[in-house]
Amino acid sequence: MPTPSQAVEFDLIVIGSGPGGYVAAIRAAQLGQKVAIVERENLGGICLNWGCIPTKALLKSGEKFESLSHLKDYGLSASGATFDFDAIIQRSRGVAATMNKGVAFLMKKNKIEVIEGSAKLEKAAGAPKVVIDLKAGGSRTVEARAVMLAVGARARALPQIGLEADGDKIWAYRDALAPKKLPRTFVVIGSGAIGLEFASFYRALGSEVTVVEAVDRIMPVEDEEVSKAAQKSFEKRGIKFRVGAKVSKVTKTASGVKVDVEIGGKAESLEAEVCISAVGITANTDGIGLEALGVTLDRGHIVVDSHCQTNVKGLFAIGDCAGAPWLAHKASHEGIHAAEYIAGYKTPNVVSPIAGCTYTQPQVASVGVTEQGARETKREVKVGRFPFRVNGKAVAAGEVDGFVKVIFDAKTGALIGAHMIGHEVTEMIQGYVTAITMEATEEDIHGIVYPHPTMSEAMHEAALDAYGRTIHL
Amino acid sequence: MPTPSQAVEFDLIVIGSGPGGYVAAIRAAQLGQKVAIVERENLGGICLNWGCIPTKALLKSGEKFESLSHLKDYGLSASGATFDFDAIIQRSRGVAATMNKGVAFLMKKNKIEVIEGSAKLEKAAGAPKVVIDLKAGGSRTVEARAVMLAVGARARALPQIGLEADGDKIWAYRDALAPKKLPRTFVVIGSGAIGLEFASFYRALGSEVTVVEAVDRIMPVEDEEVSKAAQKSFEKRGIKFRVGAKVSKVTKTASGVKVDVEIGGKAESLEAEVCISAVGITANTDGIGLEALGVTLDRGHIVVDSHCQTNVKGLFAIGDCAGAPWLAHKASHEGIHAAEYIAGYKTPNVVSPIAGCTYTQPQVASVGVTEQGARETKREVKVGRFPFRVNGKAVAAGEVDGFVKVIFDAKTGALIGAHMIGHEVTEMIQGYVTAITMEATEEDIHGIVYPHPTMSEAMHEAALDAYGRTIHL
Repeated sequence: MPTPSQAVEFDLIVIGSGPGGYVAAIRAAQLGQKVAIVERENLGGICLNWGCIPTKALLKSGEKFESLSHLKDYGLSASGATFDFDAIIQRSRGVAATMNKGVAFLMKKNKIEVIEGSAKLEKAAGAPKVVIDLKAGGSRTVEARAVMLAVGARARALPQIGLEADGDKIWAYRDALAPKKLPRTFVVIGSGAIGLEFASFYRALGSEVTVVEAVDRIMPVEDEEVSKAAQKSFEKRGIKFRVGAKVSKVTKTASGVKVDVEIGGKAESLEAEVCISAVGITANTDGIGLEALGVTLDRGHIVVDSHCQTNVKGLFAIGDCAGAPWLAHKASHEGIHAAEYIAGYKTPNVVSPIAGCTYTQPQVASVGVTEQGARETKREVKVGRFPFRVNGKAVAAGEVDGFVKVIFDAKTGALIGAHMIGHEVTEMIQGYVTAITMEATEEDIHGIVYPHPTMSEAMHEAALDAYGRTIHL
Repeated sequence: MPTPSQAVEFDLIVIGSGPGGYVAAIRAAQLGQKVAIVERENLGGICLNWGCIPTKALLKSGEKFESLSHLKDYGLSASGATFDFDAIIQRSRGVAATMNKGVAFLMKKNKIEVIEGSAKLEKAAGAPKVVIDLKAGGSRTVEARAVMLAVGARARALPQIGLEADGDKIWAYRDALAPKKLPRTFVVIGSGAIGLEFASFYRALGSEVTVVEAVDRIMPVEDEEVSKAAQKSFEKRGIKFRVGAKVSKVTKTASGVKVDVEIGGKAESLEAEVCISAVGITANTDGIGLEALGVTLDRGHIVVDSHCQTNVKGLFAIGDCAGAPWLAHKASHEGIHAAEYIAGYKTPNVVSPIAGCTYTQPQVASVGVTEQGARETKREVKVGRFPFRVNGKAVAAGEVDGFVKVIFDAKTGALIGAHMIGHEVTEMIQGYVTAITMEATEEDIHGIVYPHPTMSEAMHEAALDAYGRTIHL
């Protein structure tokens, strides 16, 4: 822990105001620390302004629009279902603006000084000095007992194959969130959460969408069975896939883009009005003075210890810039831990796994190990599954797509992985996160009384199935 | 435990095939028991055929229909939104039929003999003999090592004030599930889950609905803050309430019914086409021979021990007939425990609380103690709250109504109660059920990483709020 000093202006200065950064700043302030936060663009960072939150707004509009095609299933009808693309986009921007204002309010309430500008670090006796190129002009140098980098990441560009966002024909996520018009044809490069969420949204509004994935299955970080089921569900909605497809060249044409891919040695060209690059992210570790300070990086990410400390005295790093998983809740969790550590507060030793959520239709949510991951490490497991099609609530709601899969350690009975695909599973996964955090075994989960009638009962049945005692199959 | 005997035909005979009964039968079969089940009407009992499941189908149609009035909020539009009442009812009946067939399949698969008819118990040397008045005609006497009563309950009638369902102007839940026409005006007597779900459904389709509640607040078993918020939300949807209103007389009129109530000493008459009686239930303990056997009852319910054993050798009782809470998942849980006990299987000692769910708009879900309950027992508590209106996912989804409230034991830090009102909270509550089952403390819940962006993050924030460290308020 850095040594306190009377000479410095702040206890903590946080660079970057995404969920990791602003949450860390608030937690530090709660613990009596004097805190500043530097933001070069929008309070709330990418997540609130150009990521998690506005995409969920778009997806909700898309989902509601698509559901208008299924009214008859529920004894309902309406005619002339249509959408106002600009209104959908404006609603999403409005949601982002609301959240952004919320963060500004929280900074004020917690007496956190917001400094608008771009920060660079410089060597100092204690924690690095922070030199801020102010938005309003001029610069300001701030010293603090501790500096926390929460600078996030950006979409990865692959200029060598022409995959570099231009905001017109080649999009990054930011362009897809505030486009000028709805593309009739759309190629998504990359089938992770970001790529698939945009595929799902644009498909819901009628775009012809093709998703290209280099690996031999979509959603490569998910359990194989989930990947397979997800692809099937998305295909039913009319999304096309090219898996095991390496993009060799992206070329702008008069009418849009041409994406050359190679699948199993065969070349193919996909043409579309627009393509989006969703092939991963690059940490924002350049241009902030890390090299001169001698900060250790590993493949572009800042290396940190279990308290989010870098190898430089008084310098901490959290969230995307400090490595995978690139998820807001991982960043917030690290931010809180680091803020507590810096303030000398002893964080209770609770180890919680980080769930992953994809807000497509159907949704995907997972936590812990996959079946193939367990197999690769030769861990003996018990696997259980339960499909929503035989769950009473799912049948009543007309949401029978998908299933729950759970993985237990065969020796200890500990729950070590859970994988869900289906309607609103992103809101259910926290139950398994809670179970894993509390080190629940199969006996515990069998004994939990899941309320009836809920889709969450499938979480119980999957756990029963792993031990050959499911009731409804 | 009853003594095994070679003379008897079955190890276990279950009377009643609701979720408690059929689940118990399946579990017993899994454990190698020879099992029969007696059903006098429909496999799956009230829950599947006339309760939990078909109401959820209706409510989903109602919810979808009501959402058509809010399309503009999402940048969407459609005209001439309408519904086909018969189609909505038929869909619900179809869902019930599907589930009913599912239970028939499960009985067959598990080699459980289904006996259609009405059962009566008779004294015998071992467990009571079961004499079945067969649906197909004739009777059959069956002996088993153990008899399990899972005979459920029915809507309570109050003939002394004229509140007795006639299927025409005065409904019980069964009538409300398959009505001949949509009532223009509708009085609901009783504001528990059943009453409010029908109020919510019929209001969604445009009926003028008034709910009468004898106690001074609606949803009397819920936390007071939830009752208050629920009433406000339902009133916004146009449902009217009369609380602290004692029904003195229900009279059929030429055009419908007149419900005379007394509120604070003042008389008032409510007129409507139809009223529904949802003033609680009566256990189906009459006419099955309990008196002659000397089975101990308490206010109409069968008294059982922790293994669901009655005072009569070999006779067990589970679910609604054995007391509150009258919930299907409580019945199934008891059924499994009793089946395991009868088969000599030692159920692991996991103690799980029973959550309650109400599928109105907004939904209500709760588990454990209420704040006023804690106050009454002079238990020192820490209470936390978090509203969905500042939750990012809720804002993005346009589902900002409601909140989460949690109650911790101030001395031990144990989570002892959770109360939620809002969109789809019935699917979220299992996380808190898991936490309470695993004896989670505030430190545990603070350490759990709830995925972002989800409404379930409010579950985290409410727990933080109880200890003065919420982030987003």
